Amino acid sequence: MIKMLLNGCNGKMGKVITEMAKSSKTISIVAGVDRDSSNLTYPCYGDISKCEVDVDVILDFSRPDALDSLCEYSKEKNIPIIFCTTGFSPEQLLKIDSLSKEIPVFHSANMSIGINVVNNVLKSISKMLYKDFDIEIIEKHHNQKVDAPSGTALLLANTIKDSINDDMFFVKGRDGSSKREPKEIGIHAIRGGNIIGDHEVIFAGKGECIEIKHTAISRDVFAIGSLKACEFIYGKEKGLYTMDDVVNMSN
Amino acid sequence: MIKMLLNGCNGKMGKVITEMAKSSKTISIVAGVDRDSSNLTYPCYGDISKCEVDVDVILDFSRPDALDSLCEYSKEKNIPIIFCTTGFSPEQLLKIDSLSKEIPVFHSANMSIGINVVNNVLKSISKMLYKDFDIEIIEKHHNQKVDAPSGTALLLANTIKDSINDDMFFVKGRDGSSKREPKEIGIHAIRGGNIIGDHEVIFAGKGECIEIKHTAISRDVFAIGSLKACEFIYGKEKGLYTMDDVVNMSN
Amino acid sequence: MIKMLLNGCNGKMGKVITEMAKSSKTISIVAGVDRDSSNLTYPCYGDISKCEVDVDVILDFSRPDALDSLCEYSKEKNIPIIFCTTGFSPEQLLKIDSLSKEIPVFHSANMSIGINVVNNVLKSISKMLYKDFDIEIIEKHHNQKVDAPSGTALLLANTIKDSINDDMFFVKGRDGSSKREPKEIGIHAIRGGNIIGDHEVIFAGKGECIEIKHTAISRDVFAIGSLKACEFIYGKEKGLYTMDDVVNMSN
Amino acid sequence: MIKMLLNGCNGKMGKVITEMAKSSKTISIVAGVDRDSSNLTYPCYGDISKCEVDVDVILDFSRPDALDSLCEYSKEKNIPIIFCTTGFSPEQLLKIDSLSKEIPVFHSANMSIGINVVNNVLKSISKMLYKDFDIEIIEKHHNQKVDAPSGTALLLANTIKDSINDDMFFVKGRDGSSKREPKEIGIHAIRGGNIIGDHEVIFAGKGECIEIKHTAISRDVFAIGSLKACEFIYGKEKGLYTMDDVVNMSN
Repeated sequence: MIKMLLNGCNGKMGKVITEMAKSSKTISIVAGVDRDSSNLTYPCYGDISKCEVDVDVILDFSRPDALDSLCEYSKEKNIPIIFCTTGFSPEQLLKIDSLSKEIPVFHSANMSIGINVVNNVLKSISKMLYKDFDIEIIEKHHNQKVDAPSGTALLLANTIKDSINDDMFFVKGRDGSSKREPKEIGIHAIRGGNIIGDHEVIFAGKGECIEIKHTAISRDVFAIGSLKACEFIYGKEKGLYTMDDVVNMSN
Repeated sequence: MIKMLLNGCNGKMGKVITEMAKSSKTISIVAGVDRDSSNLTYPCYGDISKCEVDVDVILDFSRPDALDSLCEYSKEKNIPIIFCTTGFSPEQLLKIDSLSKEIPVFHSANMSIGINVVNNVLKSISKMLYKDFDIEIIEKHHNQKVDAPSGTALLLANTIKDSINDDMFFVKGRDGSSKREPKEIGIHAIRGGNIIGDHEVIFAGKGECIEIKHTAISRDVFAIGSLKACEFIYGKEKGLYTMDDVVNMSN
Repeated sequence: MIKMLLNGCNGKMGKVITEMAKSSKTISIVAGVDRDSSNLTYPCYGDISKCEVDVDVILDFSRPDALDSLCEYSKEKNIPIIFCTTGFSPEQLLKIDSLSKEIPVFHSANMSIGINVVNNVLKSISKMLYKDFDIEIIEKHHNQKVDAPSGTALLLANTIKDSINDDMFFVKGRDGSSKREPKEIGIHAIRGGNIIGDHEVIFAGKGECIEIKHTAISRDVFAIGSLKACEFIYGKEKGLYTMDDVVNMSN
Repeated sequence: MIKMLLNGCNGKMGKVITEMAKSSKTISIVAGVDRDSSNLTYPCYGDISKCEVDVDVILDFSRPDALDSLCEYSKEKNIPIIFCTTGFSPEQLLKIDSLSKEIPVFHSANMSIGINVVNNVLKSISKMLYKDFDIEIIEKHHNQKVDAPSGTALLLANTIKDSINDDMFFVKGRDGSSKREPKEIGIHAIRGGNIIGDHEVIFAGKGECIEIKHTAISRDVFAIGSLKACEFIYGKEKGLYTMDDVVNMSN
């Protein structure tokens, strides 16, 4: 069993991970860090520097301002660390990068296995298909989402654009009278109800279409992905790893 | 068997209908009108006024400028007529309307049975659902189509809007940072390859979605719909009929 | 505000409804019945006969063996009652039926608005379409579901069969070498992951398809449907009502 | 321009390819072989051995019994050959294999680019996903198709099974009361109307699904694929090539 220290163990995601780890055959939470230590079955510390438990990996689902103490602790003890916290500043991202020169560090834009698999597939097929197929993206989210298109739709669109290396450009929604140009990547944002998050890439060719679709059924996917990341980073050399490495690993 | 006179019998759609009628158990083409009379198994006239064959219905798939002679002929002989020609001017539409005061006349914006069924379903459920469900439309067409959204998408959107009788408004494509308003009807135009024509209406609610989708597999649907219209109008009283009447008939 | 008595207020569904009612503009829970009375903001009774609070409707999400006390109480006080409990025996169903001769009673096979809308749409279009369209049903559920096809898929299939009044028959899965017969209704059960529940009816015709799809995003749909039922039954005459009446009401 | 000899140039597929080649910028048909030589703009021979035109590739869309003369001709003249004819016997397949020891030979189970791309994607992701995702295949075809599941669905299923190297097994349709086993690959055959051919692979996991779908819009895809194969094989060394090589080429 991989012994995990969970930073932010009583936050929203921390609770999900605590619950999931109970039935894991590979990972066991041996210590947590949080101001609130209620309802836990493992020791919880208000300050990570106080933790003397022997751990194999650190998983962080907390807030950006915990970064400094995490860097210090993980570096000193030489423990691989996975950052799932969002909202780091550019300076903080540089700090994470520096840390990876000394210990194994994991940091990814999207922790869902599925989205990373789709992203990877797009990398490998876009270049081959784009000359004969038109590429369009449809994403669907709940009616409270303010940004359109979604960050994940843009991530996928940029993956396609970068892998093609031709001057593809984005068209966000369509209205009017002009024919589609071959280098367009159409991006369409559907909003309604409480749809959790669907992303679909369409390759429409002469006489055939290929569609690659990801549907999020629950927000647990980020917790699952973070446990996968723990398994992945355990025993690795120092360096910066992303979900893309996890997804490629098994190829 | 219903005896049909096919106006425009050697045009693109005329040929499809001629072929389809061969296996019909209810309709038999007994005469055609076209400048080109080649490869036909029934008598063909260059001028409809020359046709003395006994017919039950007239089906028109020709051009708007044939309207005058068709009106004259059908009125004089009191034969029900189905207009499938597109591109009539407002004056011509009024003339069709006048004709229906004297004989049975059939004219519809879309001759596909499926689209009219979907349109009908939308009429009956939109009013009930719109308070709890957000409504979005996605349409997909080939990359040579210049107008977006499609005429059929707008037909469906207007059916929804009219059946709700609240001040719903259309949003054609989305890009930027503002939350969806409850009275929006989002309309999204996907373009790619040689997709024939898909239309999908999404009702996205709290915890559930309903989707109603129409896919055109071939352009034969218009021919099939026109034969249905022939069966429908045969034996009817004078008046103006549409595909909506055909679709409701069997309810 | 409609004053509700919630029977089974601290069960799984009871908690969901308690939470939802907090933001309802039409319904207020004024009393509950449950053995466990913790964490409630309204009075809770261990025995319904002890409840003297003035209520407009009774909503039951408990167990079949609570039926007798519910019937007695609702009849004596002449309060409309909605049964959302599942698993009633045939005798109990008869008792519910009898009760509806004296007071307004609501009981439905499926409490989701969406499934009932889809069911209703199928009633109105199946008869019209079946001669020219082949009908197939696909349902998808999580990998722990033991029965295939799902009860809801069978509900929809029976609705189609009954509305057609021809000798349609069900084919559950396909394997082998025989051509589809026109009177088949194919039913296909996909199982995987933790899919909550999708149901899709396909009408496949010559040159076109119509698909009507319901996707459950969360199990909240049953709670939402039960609140709709409360609004519906409030002020009604005695009689037996189902979700179908709610769905038709707004037409 | 690659100079093509088209064997079976006046057959159904031959005509499609003749039409397509007219607008090709890379391929020009310089000779054909067929009993019927009507309506062609290039010389047509009743017997391939009579053809003295200088050609770069031979494309065969004829019948298995033409194999011997094709092998002889292509080997003698050292011209790359693409076999798109179906229905070869095991002995004939061995003969094709032998031929590829001497000249470049192309032969593939499915000539559509799209299906081969999907097949390739499945190869790369199935092994990684199968431990956490359940795999199901849905295929849809017209109501005249006698075999279920389709050959292409079985091709995809076998690709998945082979890439996993665990004892996965196929379940064709589901009916009854038993829980899905993790090693099942469910295969579902929908039949209706004149659907040309859809294939969809679902990876259903905890909290997310990935779907990879191929839709055939017209039978032109086989003609397009065969032209791609011509471009691919032109200038290649002797050997046996398949669509898989075309699809991988551009990676």
